[in-house]
Amino acid sequence: MSSKTTLADVARLANVSVATASKALNHTDRISARTQRAVLKAAEQLGYDKANRTERSREHSGLIGLITSDYNGRFALPLLTGAEITLGASNHAALLMSSHGRPALEKSHIDRLAVHGVDGLIVVGDTTNSRPPLDPQTTMGLPVIYAYDPSRDPNDCSIICDNIGAGAQAIEYLLNIGRRYIAVIAGPEDFQAAKDRVLGAQRTFILYDFQPIAILFDAWSEEWGERAAQLLVEQHPHLDAIYCLSDEIARGAVRGLRSIGKRVPQDVAVIGHDNWFIFAANAHPTLTTFDNNITIIGKTAAQFLLDALAGRPHHGVTSIECPMIVRESTEPRRHTALESTGRVYERKTS
Amino acid sequence: MSSKTTLADVARLANVSVATASKALNHTDRISARTQRAVLKAAEQLGYDKANRTERSREHSGLIGLITSDYNGRFALPLLTGAEITLGASNHAALLMSSHGRPALEKSHIDRLAVHGVDGLIVVGDTTNSRPPLDPQTTMGLPVIYAYDPSRDPNDCSIICDNIGAGAQAIEYLLNIGRRYIAVIAGPEDFQAAKDRVLGAQRTFILYDFQPIAILFDAWSEEWGERAAQLLVEQHPHLDAIYCLSDEIARGAVRGLRSIGKRVPQDVAVIGHDNWFIFAANAHPTLTTFDNNITIIGKTAAQFLLDALAGRPHHGVTSIECPMIVRESTEPRRHTALESTGRVYERKTS
Repeated sequence: MSSKTTLADVARLANVSVATASKALNHTDRISARTQRAVLKAAEQLGYDKANRTERSREHSGLIGLITSDYNGRFALPLLTGAEITLGASNHAALLMSSHGRPALEKSHIDRLAVHGVDGLIVVGDTTNSRPPLDPQTTMGLPVIYAYDPSRDPNDCSIICDNIGAGAQAIEYLLNIGRRYIAVIAGPEDFQAAKDRVLGAQRTFILYDFQPIAILFDAWSEEWGERAAQLLVEQHPHLDAIYCLSDEIARGAVRGLRSIGKRVPQDVAVIGHDNWFIFAANAHPTLTTFDNNITIIGKTAAQFLLDALAGRPHHGVTSIECPMIVRESTEPRRHTALESTGRVYERKTS
Repeated sequence: MSSKTTLADVARLANVSVATASKALNHTDRISARTQRAVLKAAEQLGYDKANRTERSREHSGLIGLITSDYNGRFALPLLTGAEITLGASNHAALLMSSHGRPALEKSHIDRLAVHGVDGLIVVGDTTNSRPPLDPQTTMGLPVIYAYDPSRDPNDCSIICDNIGAGAQAIEYLLNIGRRYIAVIAGPEDFQAAKDRVLGAQRTFILYDFQPIAILFDAWSEEWGERAAQLLVEQHPHLDAIYCLSDEIARGAVRGLRSIGKRVPQDVAVIGHDNWFIFAANAHPTLTTFDNNITIIGKTAAQFLLDALAGRPHHGVTSIECPMIVRESTEPRRHTALESTGRVYERKTS
């Protein structure tokens, strides 16, 4: 019997839901000690835990599964690299599978990984928007960390970029270098990253009692950056700084400003976002921008997963700071070392 | 005894090298029928094949391992996607591990994958340069397909981009649209992709009895494209076309040409390479370029691996055609659909 016991059997015997049984067995959530005891007792009675682990895995396979919905790999590979650095130190390795954001594929990939004995999962998004948590019947008690796109369940463990902090820092920096007529060119309004960076910017505007010239939402594209910058100068000829919410938008904005005779950074300072090297460091001028610190997110996700495996699970959303990299689009070239690598901006307030 | 039998024991009994024993057991290489019989007999005598498979895997786990040395995911993720499309149809799934081009990590990843029962391997490069084949003691008889970077062993199965064909087509197209003073701006001379694209271009120059104005090698960067384009116009004011070996170089070339008053494409037509969407389709003008067809490479690699698993291994290097995508940098805008998606150029000769 024990080899055919399912989580549902355990839940039934303990008189709890499958989700609660899964959480109790995995120690991944705060549930009452009484419920946890009931579930553990039921599992023991049915021989569930042992049978289940023997059936589907070697104990501590040393493998961690990453499931990504990122198609072009821009987030998934740096995050995988970060996770590997941390996992390697404890003799774990990471396997990545691609779900293209399709829940059915995500579920079937996790089933495969569970059958082949991974110890835990890192779910990697590419939008910054919150996502539904995985079904406990899918994860079958495996610990899960959500990276880049947080889980909607506040008890889950999620690691994200501190986009609010980045937005606040961008405006603080522009004010510090003496800019007073500042606009924001954002991406689409339905991206959490856009909302959060704008929210952070607004906080600094309020703190210093400044009004932004305009905050414009549209697309994550160079074309939008170009069009928006031209529009802004037309309506506000005294504009002296633009905070762009992506490096693509920033490159477009630089192009738009130049097409109407404005110099960057002398007339208008421009900040980007993402520190996507090929865009930001190869631009002309090179772009001041925020680094999303994806490798650090990967390292942190791996560490939190190892902690969960060691019985010390984390809960809630952890924000990783995005350092600001200063390059020529906000400060005229002073020395060549600045050109591509840039320097990290030291915050005055925090 | 059988559970401790190693491939080396089988090789010793059959009086062949470990590499030959591995190839014979896996049917992955052309070796004499006599040798193959000797190895299979030795394996049977020692109970090797069965013991080995039982120990390290379920038979046909349905899992394929991808090992990539690509850090930023630009090649690895689209290739993974292509492989998944093909594998999904036969109920296989793909796991990706990142080796950062470090042979020791590559070996340890393959060991992990073999222990966890993958059926075969796809090794993904990111340079186009040929690479040493994996040690048979590492692959332990698993079939291997090399993608993007070919194996140096001509008996291995490798899938690459047809860079020679792309170079030939670029020049043919420029001649067809009436350009006569054509230069090539290449990347670093030690990249096979640069050598092959230049070789293809030279073949068309010879075929049509034309001399290129110049062929300049240096870096895969916008900065180099800009500098090279300015240099070319300075020395050859009648220049009317540039074939650039990457989209980044092409974007730099467009910038350089504009900075000295040349219009693209009216004065100088510019072609890029890679069809890296964010670069090529967001450029101004949008870039005519070659698509590396990475997803098709992934699909083909997966199909060839499934063929090997079914006892029909492929050998040698298979080149996948890179379609040319025509956009505004070579042909003035005629209709809006051309702007970002472009159209595939139909070859006149082949």
